[in-house]
Amino acid sequence: MQFKKSDLLKNFNITLDLAVEAHEMVRGEAGREVPGVVQDVQEYDFAKVTTITVTDQQGAQLVSKPIGNYVTIDAPQIRENNLQIHEEISKILADTITKLAKLTDNSTVLLVGLGNWNATPDALGPQVIKYSLVTRHIKEHTPVELHGNLRSVCALSPGVLGLTGIETAEIIKGVVDRVKPDLVIAIDALASASVERISTTIQIADTGISPGSGVGNQRLGLNQESMGVPVLAIGVPTVVNAGVIAHSALEKLLEQLQTSPTLYQIYKGLNQDAVANIINEVLAPFSGDLMVTPKEIDQLIEHTGKIIAGGLTQALHPAISKEEYATYLH
Amino acid sequence: MQFKKSDLLKNFNITLDLAVEAHEMVRGEAGREVPGVVQDVQEYDFAKVTTITVTDQQGAQLVSKPIGNYVTIDAPQIRENNLQIHEEISKILADTITKLAKLTDNSTVLLVGLGNWNATPDALGPQVIKYSLVTRHIKEHTPVELHGNLRSVCALSPGVLGLTGIETAEIIKGVVDRVKPDLVIAIDALASASVERISTTIQIADTGISPGSGVGNQRLGLNQESMGVPVLAIGVPTVVNAGVIAHSALEKLLEQLQTSPTLYQIYKGLNQDAVANIINEVLAPFSGDLMVTPKEIDQLIEHTGKIIAGGLTQALHPAISKEEYATYLH
Amino acid sequence: MQFKKSDLLKNFNITLDLAVEAHEMVRGEAGREVPGVVQDVQEYDFAKVTTITVTDQQGAQLVSKPIGNYVTIDAPQIRENNLQIHEEISKILADTITKLAKLTDNSTVLLVGLGNWNATPDALGPQVIKYSLVTRHIKEHTPVELHGNLRSVCALSPGVLGLTGIETAEIIKGVVDRVKPDLVIAIDALASASVERISTTIQIADTGISPGSGVGNQRLGLNQESMGVPVLAIGVPTVVNAGVIAHSALEKLLEQLQTSPTLYQIYKGLNQDAVANIINEVLAPFSGDLMVTPKEIDQLIEHTGKIIAGGLTQALHPAISKEEYATYLH
Amino acid sequence: MQFKKSDLLKNFNITLDLAVEAHEMVRGEAGREVPGVVQDVQEYDFAKVTTITVTDQQGAQLVSKPIGNYVTIDAPQIRENNLQIHEEISKILADTITKLAKLTDNSTVLLVGLGNWNATPDALGPQVIKYSLVTRHIKEHTPVELHGNLRSVCALSPGVLGLTGIETAEIIKGVVDRVKPDLVIAIDALASASVERISTTIQIADTGISPGSGVGNQRLGLNQESMGVPVLAIGVPTVVNAGVIAHSALEKLLEQLQTSPTLYQIYKGLNQDAVANIINEVLAPFSGDLMVTPKEIDQLIEHTGKIIAGGLTQALHPAISKEEYATYLH
Repeated sequence: MQFKKSDLLKNFNITLDLAVEAHEMVRGEAGREVPGVVQDVQEYDFAKVTTITVTDQQGAQLVSKPIGNYVTIDAPQIRENNLQIHEEISKILADTITKLAKLTDNSTVLLVGLGNWNATPDALGPQVIKYSLVTRHIKEHTPVELHGNLRSVCALSPGVLGLTGIETAEIIKGVVDRVKPDLVIAIDALASASVERISTTIQIADTGISPGSGVGNQRLGLNQESMGVPVLAIGVPTVVNAGVIAHSALEKLLEQLQTSPTLYQIYKGLNQDAVANIINEVLAPFSGDLMVTPKEIDQLIEHTGKIIAGGLTQALHPAISKEEYATYLH
Repeated sequence: MQFKKSDLLKNFNITLDLAVEAHEMVRGEAGREVPGVVQDVQEYDFAKVTTITVTDQQGAQLVSKPIGNYVTIDAPQIRENNLQIHEEISKILADTITKLAKLTDNSTVLLVGLGNWNATPDALGPQVIKYSLVTRHIKEHTPVELHGNLRSVCALSPGVLGLTGIETAEIIKGVVDRVKPDLVIAIDALASASVERISTTIQIADTGISPGSGVGNQRLGLNQESMGVPVLAIGVPTVVNAGVIAHSALEKLLEQLQTSPTLYQIYKGLNQDAVANIINEVLAPFSGDLMVTPKEIDQLIEHTGKIIAGGLTQALHPAISKEEYATYLH
Repeated sequence: MQFKKSDLLKNFNITLDLAVEAHEMVRGEAGREVPGVVQDVQEYDFAKVTTITVTDQQGAQLVSKPIGNYVTIDAPQIRENNLQIHEEISKILADTITKLAKLTDNSTVLLVGLGNWNATPDALGPQVIKYSLVTRHIKEHTPVELHGNLRSVCALSPGVLGLTGIETAEIIKGVVDRVKPDLVIAIDALASASVERISTTIQIADTGISPGSGVGNQRLGLNQESMGVPVLAIGVPTVVNAGVIAHSALEKLLEQLQTSPTLYQIYKGLNQDAVANIINEVLAPFSGDLMVTPKEIDQLIEHTGKIIAGGLTQALHPAISKEEYATYLH
Repeated sequence: MQFKKSDLLKNFNITLDLAVEAHEMVRGEAGREVPGVVQDVQEYDFAKVTTITVTDQQGAQLVSKPIGNYVTIDAPQIRENNLQIHEEISKILADTITKLAKLTDNSTVLLVGLGNWNATPDALGPQVIKYSLVTRHIKEHTPVELHGNLRSVCALSPGVLGLTGIETAEIIKGVVDRVKPDLVIAIDALASASVERISTTIQIADTGISPGSGVGNQRLGLNQESMGVPVLAIGVPTVVNAGVIAHSALEKLLEQLQTSPTLYQIYKGLNQDAVANIINEVLAPFSGDLMVTPKEIDQLIEHTGKIIAGGLTQALHPAISKEEYATYLH
């Protein structure tokens, strides 16, 4: 087919935040193997967990993702208000964090809530920070019965460039240099290529965050290279770029036309630029900066925020029992 | 053409919130006159003001809008951060409110900020209430120098069904029955059929708000019939339904195909249901409940919120001078 | 003694929001019986529950509280961050609500969060509403597994006079007339006469709220008489009037002086007006409108807000199990 | 007199945030000169401006304030809602900042909003940041007509220890090391020794902020020594320590008793510890952590927040005209 999503993304300067989507696109419909990339899938009651490991530089280049591990938890029921299922997903998330984070009892962790608290679809990071259990300050504000059993956790919502006038990564780097944590965990709202993934997918990556990703488009990277300590990135798609929606509609229409044999020559006549032009016309004057998000985005942000905070609490403070964890969520 | 926007809207249960868009659609490309509807256009330095008057029942049925006046202020520069232009637009808004509201010195006005304060694109109404000058309570909180010169204004942000469990119109009707205002002015975020109108268009209608309109889709109407007093509705598009975006892309593609004479038969093969199916596939699982909104929606809501609050202050408290008004905005 | 707290309160126009304090004051140091008032005390592991029943008009006049039941839960550990104890207290609160509310399965309850969300010490009511489970709207936003097991609950934070220009009771009465609930439960921040009670005492009264009480001083009552349906009031002291603090200091000083026999005549020389003058001088220019509140008031409001929301959920939706309740709190 | 405020403050570990109060206390009732401290007073229409200069180490020790300049703007009408007067005070503030800050056209300024946004009386700093004009990020979000005329300003609200687990000064130092501003301006809510100063006094100090001051009690200093760049501190009293209120009441009572000649021996009997004990009893269990604040603290914070933001805008962006400044406030 002539109209490739990968070209569209390039035209609109769209990065695929999810490794699983980037991998899928490279594999194509044929589902061919991608050298330097290993995929593993595990099924749970309410979730499918896909681990994509980019093992070498060739794989990294092919899927445009740094070498490392990308775990994707797919759980459509996050969108339902079923708290038992939410807890199951928190548990899977906690296990994934534990596996990727490699913490010791004495590790200090800095949680970073990326995104703009004033724009609901971008507010996931600050929301998670609000629900998180902060303990680094001599644990004086933590429950009496748990003193001594908690890891040292501190937390920050650095805001966005438009609010502070400072690159987010600069603020974080400054704090990292002072606090000297053993690990940074950054939480961010992501853009997906498909509507289905909004608020149903959680990606955990031990490669941190690359420049240009996230709803608010971080300009600088947030990774071991820039921070000097490992960075775990937790992201949930909350929007789809509007260009992707428009393109998907065109693509599906063209697929249907394709079934008619007489249309072969039309395809020839239409090139990719024409498609890009059509989409640009539809989306002007915002072009690449329009996002598609569900009406109930405030509730989805709240639910996923609590699931992630719950997973973090379990992974970072394993001394807290399962019953206690439920109450800590509050 | 076979694929009509009006059919799409019907398929997706989308109401056109803007009378100017509804009128345009009925007029069609030929721009024919619509019986029972009169349109008047005035040009200002930074704004085009279109007044659509639905004069009789036939017109009302054709454009699916009740009999009454619909003034649309189109000002693309609302999106720029130019405060002088913002003041000009506030002034035009104030004049329009004054003309449509027919207040006396002793009128009491109830401002109602519709929408969900937790979801940025739907938060315009509550934002305007936050910036508004409330005076009804014996004017004790108003500036010393202005006592006695202010109209009696009270204000309410009733929340949305999901937060209160009560239909918004029920809450407002209850308050109207107690406060007995002479006029209700309801402010709401609207959905538009075109991206260009997001945060550049202000509609003022003396017919109130019809059921099913607004970003949050009010279920009940908010108008003279339901409230017992006149209702002025002020709305600004902050989103476009994602179905409309997808449809616009398809429409533009088909327009291009149409230029090729050999494609006539393809059109025959494709019917409207097919198009609706394509769009449904792309937007599943949210379907009609996906909205397209710009990334900087928080800033747009803040700017338009201040412009509207400024216009309201000038119209409702004309004793406040132009210089003072600027400071009142704060 | 010449300097009576009751006189001070009169001088400063301070109402004692807690029946237990009003009763104590009337009983005096001698602890004499007050006719028309019955007191019952029950001890729990983490709480002392005092029920004061005003049985007739004489008692009502003596303690300045309407005929009815006033249950006070005293639990100093609310101030600690111990979630197990918080749950115990939620349970006691739930039992108290159940006893006083007399609901049937089909009862509809309107929760009202009184107070100003912009001023932390007065924000308890709106905070509780934020954490509450709202179900009246066809239960569409409630957890899938619980459909059909929930009571019909709706909720409103009406704001304060300074924000709306409308008496709070007017707004509530308007909504009550439309929604026609079987019970109103109003949650409010209270003023106490002693610092110890801040965030450690919960009062539940089946008489509603009298005019002039609460941190924000409701001007109109919120009770069966004004609303037409029973009103349960839940209140937690979050402030002490600064006049009370100053007076307590003077009182204690005079007590100490009193032990010296030579000082008898000094007392004669000092009258109550002198004391009032001293306090007025200290508190000018705010006089009666200064409140004393702990630095960590934001955390206390959050904790008590969750305890109350938890108690409400258990009392109003008893079909939700104890485990589920913990998660619902979140 | 035996009961000295200075002793009380020591007993309760209370720092006098305002230099003008510290100076007054050292001067005593006799108003004697304090070596190493120079005071200058200027009268304006709506404000009295007192400049206290601590010139040497002896003065610094006597008033417990570092060597430097402390300008206090006293303007009781800040508390009234008169916007013309507010602008006058903004202007005086702007002139003071300009004088103390010594900026060049190319200076970069970092604004820091200290305090806890969740506790209204401590939220002044974050409120000012919300109203401030941030320009450092290539000025892309500033008004079109002003490009090129604005100084480079960035801004941060670092939160408080209880929210982040990180000492505030650590966060700021980290950001300062990355951004390398020429000046830090820190805005904070202060505690005063007198109720009259709440929301009527603005202090601007070129010595930064000392450890232990402010409503939230910064543990580390925020000054040139710790930050490596000059720090201007802007503070407004929003609370009085409750111990101070109680003490003032006792003091005034004792003053009255003193007029009676027969009471001389009583004074002997009562020592300072007794007074401290009385106050401790009254304030237990919160002791030093109770603050006295007016009921309308939310409005006072909003007003003073806008006055300070207005003063900052004028001082930092002098190219913006007076008319424009009013609109920028919004």
